[in-house]
Amino acid sequence: MKATIITIGDEILIGQILDTNSRYISRTLNAHGIVVAERTSIGDNRTQIVETLDRALSQSEIVIITGGLGPTKDDITKHTLCEYFGSTLRYDEVEAKHIRTLLEARNIVFNDLNRGQAMVPECCTVLHNAHGTAPGMWFEQEGRVVISLPGVPFEMQHLIDEEVMPRLTARFELREIIHRTMITFGIAESILAERIAAWEEALPEYLHLAYLPAPNVVRLRLSAYEVEGKEVSREIDSQFEKLHTIIPDNIAGFEDASVEELVHNILINRGQTLAVAESCTGGAIASKFTAQAGASAYFLCGVVSYSNESKCNVLGVQMSDIEQYGAVSEQVAKAMAQGAKVISGANFAISTTGIAGPTGGTKEKPVGTVWIGIATPDKCFAVRKNCGTDRSQIISRATAYAIAMLYDELK
Amino acid sequence: MKATIITIGDEILIGQILDTNSRYISRTLNAHGIVVAERTSIGDNRTQIVETLDRALSQSEIVIITGGLGPTKDDITKHTLCEYFGSTLRYDEVEAKHIRTLLEARNIVFNDLNRGQAMVPECCTVLHNAHGTAPGMWFEQEGRVVISLPGVPFEMQHLIDEEVMPRLTARFELREIIHRTMITFGIAESILAERIAAWEEALPEYLHLAYLPAPNVVRLRLSAYEVEGKEVSREIDSQFEKLHTIIPDNIAGFEDASVEELVHNILINRGQTLAVAESCTGGAIASKFTAQAGASAYFLCGVVSYSNESKCNVLGVQMSDIEQYGAVSEQVAKAMAQGAKVISGANFAISTTGIAGPTGGTKEKPVGTVWIGIATPDKCFAVRKNCGTDRSQIISRATAYAIAMLYDELK
Repeated sequence: MKATIITIGDEILIGQILDTNSRYISRTLNAHGIVVAERTSIGDNRTQIVETLDRALSQSEIVIITGGLGPTKDDITKHTLCEYFGSTLRYDEVEAKHIRTLLEARNIVFNDLNRGQAMVPECCTVLHNAHGTAPGMWFEQEGRVVISLPGVPFEMQHLIDEEVMPRLTARFELREIIHRTMITFGIAESILAERIAAWEEALPEYLHLAYLPAPNVVRLRLSAYEVEGKEVSREIDSQFEKLHTIIPDNIAGFEDASVEELVHNILINRGQTLAVAESCTGGAIASKFTAQAGASAYFLCGVVSYSNESKCNVLGVQMSDIEQYGAVSEQVAKAMAQGAKVISGANFAISTTGIAGPTGGTKEKPVGTVWIGIATPDKCFAVRKNCGTDRSQIISRATAYAIAMLYDELK
Repeated sequence: MKATIITIGDEILIGQILDTNSRYISRTLNAHGIVVAERTSIGDNRTQIVETLDRALSQSEIVIITGGLGPTKDDITKHTLCEYFGSTLRYDEVEAKHIRTLLEARNIVFNDLNRGQAMVPECCTVLHNAHGTAPGMWFEQEGRVVISLPGVPFEMQHLIDEEVMPRLTARFELREIIHRTMITFGIAESILAERIAAWEEALPEYLHLAYLPAPNVVRLRLSAYEVEGKEVSREIDSQFEKLHTIIPDNIAGFEDASVEELVHNILINRGQTLAVAESCTGGAIASKFTAQAGASAYFLCGVVSYSNESKCNVLGVQMSDIEQYGAVSEQVAKAMAQGAKVISGANFAISTTGIAGPTGGTKEKPVGTVWIGIATPDKCFAVRKNCGTDRSQIISRATAYAIAMLYDELK
């Protein structure tokens, strides 16, 4: 079963916002055995919507559209779909009541524009949007399904989970899609590919191998589309098992778990705790851990010690060390990690201190220089990394390196 | 001048990664006067690449493709393009030497797969990738340009900035695209639209208005495509000027500046400083500020006080207050903000303490309850907000509310 995802909105085409909706829908469809053939982003433009919908229906049984359902004039998706399916709009009392209730809770008067949001095409099934004022819509035509959802991410997500997927799994006979990912460490993509070439050559035809490189890590993904899940999972297990003998020292973990998820699981399982002291990463490491449900079981404290004074006052770094070695140094990285460990009472601590740029670099310590410190129950050390040249790149790489280094200590 | 962006990679279609490349390219093209007509993501599939390229060339003068240029077998973009343009591959000595140098710096042996990366189609202009091993490619056909870039974000970004844009601006005669955004506060989208309906009605035909709602904020964007920039900017200024009389109390700022950018600029201009104390937002607020170049001028310290002990030991919150009122309370939010201000010596401090879920909610304090504290040079207060039901939504809303509340105090 194939699907096409269409996101509508000039804000996507001009790059004003990042399209996270497509990813959520892709993941969810895949998890239910529906292959995403294509994702397309287009503007709030009638002709373009119609042409893209025509093409999507010619190549897939399911079309999911997000965006363009707001109460204002720039949002034309509903009217365009109503016309496309040769229908007319009707006033839906249930939706109107729901919208009125939502607005009253926020002390907002129900007006003509909100009344417009309660108008739905006669021919569609209304998908109730419990978390917002724009209802979703489900259209059917010649055995194919077109679904229109609001673009606000969490409204869209609830509609996908609670209204769309139960209907799609009931409506179509779906097979399974299996993706399994092995995370490798400390081996370059080209060397890895050479090392496992014979293994790759001998993979069954229906298993697709992909290499996904990232700083310090290459993920190997095996995918199989529209298959019998259990059988294929067993085959993938046995294929990955073989890799244990080919690259025994380079396997970090499995599945799509990010390295922070792996650390999260280890710490929870072992009942151990973590603190972080960040300078150049500015809270990014703490965010990665605390974004995960259950992080409070092990994440005790983070300190974003941006100023030298806060490194000393909060973390107990010696000002004399900063003066002698510089804030970006092995000594300070170690003292920060040690300090975070002490003030929080955690078992492990990570620290970062570096030059995120664009200014502040010197010949000896150019922009991108980052010292990463790790304190464990029995040692404390720091490693210097070159994390690139661009501020956001430096922050994200230093974050990835630091978490990977902690993982290396834990596993 | 129209462009189509094509991102290639099964990892996008299955939702394993978020496509940030399309956004970067969209923004950059817009800034140079090139209209992005469509963005499409497809798989590593020869037929699909060819069909999508055909369609892109029929609707736009410029096609930018990212992804599928790695050294391994799953990456087929280069071979497919070489075939599409009826060319053959040649070995590029310059690129080979560059790849060899990059690998040697990482102690990696140059192998056959790397040799393959130095092969380029005869008919293309090579775009030198100073930051990676996969060169970019520039093809021309019947006055149209097809550009292929690697998918690694920072490699792609450098190629766009340093190789692609200088060539595109030299190759085509480009007009200007103007986007200007006004940020409104404290007024619901439907009410706002009603209030400014007459103004909207009277806008010149070539100005397109878009409403972009977010928690607590509605952005109004005026866009004009392929125009004379200066003249249109003046017109937009005068249109926005009129809004000052229609919604005088609801205008927060201008441009695409996020609220954290507005705060960043105010603090730098005034020489004032900031500290944050985060519980449920877990470092997200600190990250938002420190991601901005120059943040070290005002951002002194952040504390992610996840455990009650760290709230007390690091921030000086009284354990008796936590016991009496709970960690998620007005008293603790205020004490956290005050504590962050004191330990850092900052002029302003923000704090958050809430229940990010999925567990930990009670009837009085359900998941999503967040207290946000603000300490200024002369007062300290806290406000209770309901930030939703989903962990990532709660973190991002609480972050947005907290930064908006600080902005409200500063402006």
